Amino acid sequence: MKIARLSLESGPRFGVADETGNYHIIAGDPIYSGIEQTGKVVREAEANLVSPMIPRSKVVGVAGNFGQEIDGLAFLKPNTAVVGPDVPITVPTWSTQVAVAGSLAVIIKRICKDVEPEQVGEVIFGYTGAIDATDVASLKQGWLAEAKGFDTSLPLGPVIETSLDTTSLEMALEVNGEVRASGNTVDFTRSVPEIVSRMSKVFTLLPGDVILLGHPGELVPVEAGDDVRLTIEGIGTLRNPVA
Amino acid sequence: MKIARLSLESGPRFGVADETGNYHIIAGDPIYSGIEQTGKVVREAEANLVSPMIPRSKVVGVAGNFGQEIDGLAFLKPNTAVVGPDVPITVPTWSTQVAVAGSLAVIIKRICKDVEPEQVGEVIFGYTGAIDATDVASLKQGWLAEAKGFDTSLPLGPVIETSLDTTSLEMALEVNGEVRASGNTVDFTRSVPEIVSRMSKVFTLLPGDVILLGHPGELVPVEAGDDVRLTIEGIGTLRNPVA
Repeated sequence: MKIARLSLESGPRFGVADETGNYHIIAGDPIYSGIEQTGKVVREAEANLVSPMIPRSKVVGVAGNFGQEIDGLAFLKPNTAVVGPDVPITVPTWSTQVAVAGSLAVIIKRICKDVEPEQVGEVIFGYTGAIDATDVASLKQGWLAEAKGFDTSLPLGPVIETSLDTTSLEMALEVNGEVRASGNTVDFTRSVPEIVSRMSKVFTLLPGDVILLGHPGELVPVEAGDDVRLTIEGIGTLRNPVA
Repeated sequence: MKIARLSLESGPRFGVADETGNYHIIAGDPIYSGIEQTGKVVREAEANLVSPMIPRSKVVGVAGNFGQEIDGLAFLKPNTAVVGPDVPITVPTWSTQVAVAGSLAVIIKRICKDVEPEQVGEVIFGYTGAIDATDVASLKQGWLAEAKGFDTSLPLGPVIETSLDTTSLEMALEVNGEVRASGNTVDFTRSVPEIVSRMSKVFTLLPGDVILLGHPGELVPVEAGDDVRLTIEGIGTLRNPVA
């Protein structure tokens, strides 16, 4: 099931996609109140998607995970970094170089702690795409909060897929139509259950928390005017310009 | 004015301390709804204080700031790391060494972005104490999220002081009754207005966000059974055991 969050006149509302791509608006937040149809339908062409999730607590990310050794949890991003599809990634005035990476992201369903790998399926609400933007100079100096946390540095979307077999998914990050990084989740160093289990042994995970599972390839430098697209098999394409 | 958050039978409630130390319970959250007295009073001896603030979005910290150069923002801690006075700092099962530092913490009053230093006073709700616990091995490896973010790694309290001149405050971190790190905010490399302004140029700051202003001295290793106390002039003593 694909769930999007749409900007309506009455404010943001969740909607479930049908086989034609139209969205059936539901009441409330599906993490908390399940799927309760309202009868309202928004046609795909008229749908204005916003970030499918605003984390209540945190976004946690691993670096690499396509062949690199992953023995720890690299970074946090605050919920104020999150934007939706089509919203510009704004290069901060103090930044000399921003770079992007594409990641599959897990969205947590329920409060949990110390989850074993074989139980991880019970605490996952679904999956979405994440473009993880980084200020390169701050990263080099170890100023991780500003390297990873600036406003607009985490586009999420376009939708949450609640049923996804993550063992073999193609993913590609394009800048201005050219593929700059690509991979398949079959090459994950650490599997989704391993990573989510590990995180749950460090942090209490809350509903809506987001976990970035790592990106293929190197960070890709971008500049204002660029067009960034992340396509993940089974989820779709998240597109954000750079401003 | 000193504001605490107390655990009552009806749940956590904010209270304002009077000159005798008793707490006058107020309705709602003082950041959002101001000070509205309910008439209920809890005597100091019976007050069970909890964390005076649970950040809605983020805790951002600088490293050092007592003489060291501070050119960037070092780390984020998630709201799930926050505990109140007397709650044990629990050494994670995967940790070989936890160390602590004491920091003066700013609590943000209103949503803001790109605040100039001379306007910072308008966005600060108050100040509290913070014991910032770190997993040493993760820090050395650059796994900053788990080094800084584990559950119970951020005791806050005991109270929020809403009127505090931060230009010259003595602070001391004791472990088992022995002072292990101390300093005076007169030696801050970067002042409160400089740091908050800088943060607001990286992140949108939200009400209840917490900023750690840096600690005097080195990180102090602790182990289960230790008693940690942070005393900041004008705020009081935050005490947490290590478990």
